[in-house]
Amino acid sequence: MNTGRLFVISGPSGAGKGTICSRILEQDNVRLSISMTTRTPRDGEVHGKSYYFVSKEEFQKTIEEKGFLEYAEVYGNFYGTPKMEVMGLLKSGTDVVLEIDIQGALQIKKSYPEAVLIYILPPSMAELRKRITERGTETEESLNRRMGETLNELSYIHEYDYCVINDELQKAIQRVKAIMTAEHSRISEDIHKIVEQYKEEL
Amino acid sequence: MNTGRLFVISGPSGAGKGTICSRILEQDNVRLSISMTTRTPRDGEVHGKSYYFVSKEEFQKTIEEKGFLEYAEVYGNFYGTPKMEVMGLLKSGTDVVLEIDIQGALQIKKSYPEAVLIYILPPSMAELRKRITERGTETEESLNRRMGETLNELSYIHEYDYCVINDELQKAIQRVKAIMTAEHSRISEDIHKIVEQYKEEL
Repeated sequence: MNTGRLFVISGPSGAGKGTICSRILEQDNVRLSISMTTRTPRDGEVHGKSYYFVSKEEFQKTIEEKGFLEYAEVYGNFYGTPKMEVMGLLKSGTDVVLEIDIQGALQIKKSYPEAVLIYILPPSMAELRKRITERGTETEESLNRRMGETLNELSYIHEYDYCVINDELQKAIQRVKAIMTAEHSRISEDIHKIVEQYKEEL
Repeated sequence: MNTGRLFVISGPSGAGKGTICSRILEQDNVRLSISMTTRTPRDGEVHGKSYYFVSKEEFQKTIEEKGFLEYAEVYGNFYGTPKMEVMGLLKSGTDVVLEIDIQGALQIKKSYPEAVLIYILPPSMAELRKRITERGTETEESLNRRMGETLNELSYIHEYDYCVINDELQKAIQRVKAIMTAEHSRISEDIHKIVEQYKEEL
């Protein structure tokens, strides 16, 4: 049986990566990785579903045991991707999707080089600004800050494997699905095992 | 506009690469590269469609002008992939498919590293033997030689980008199509140009 693949999806807020991820997760044999965090659960958040909510001590212990594929501190709270769960899913043949920022994505590529990094881009910066403005949740200042952060992120795009432009949602979803299908045909350990079988057959 | 991608498809006779190629070529914006050869046209073969039929002198001149992406001599005849035509198609945004053996594929990867190499495998060596036997065109000896050649080719499979197992034709076609779609989202010069545009926008 083939092992699963790890897909890391990043992109600026407003590029549509949340919608794309949720549509991808409707497929069989794909699961979202659940992060571990030290922050307090918000109303409606469920342990083991939204996050694994743990104490700072437990988080620290997992760091020391090298139990994270990546982790970061954000405003005093820790967030991390537990290695054991992801590896278990991959080994069982399930693809794992991680929605994470660029710093986390680059950490993952280091700790698990087979990870496939996909960056979701809006069709233009003007369109990104429009989409965020329409949400009505940002001040002019925070909007400008976001746009600056996006430009800064784009300097790291060459570290990614793929970049999907979300000009039309359906097309963007199809592109990400095609990447997932294609990656299962990529030359990998699985293929080498199959080739060994072929050699033994003769 | 995005440039086209060059897809090189190889695999043992009987793996089904011919059928897969012809189905891929039904898509818009995909073209088969036409080879140049010094061999005599067979009945029904059309210059500029089956092959470009040329003299040995003309072929030699094209070699000297570094006009081939790859070429080889087979039983005294020369066969080659003309660079100019392929590059013209790619530049115009058309994908180009090349059905070629492993030696040719590796030459292409050297002269055009952006080429995407896909190897089509039968589901097993037993199935390959069965498919070739059913054609009834091979003696036991030539069948065994073919099987040996296939095993030898498999030692080079790590040089390829993808390996598609043709267990069910429809699935294999979908996998190759997914690879073609995915490769258009791969981080490339096109993406870098888009990112530059985004930066200028702000």
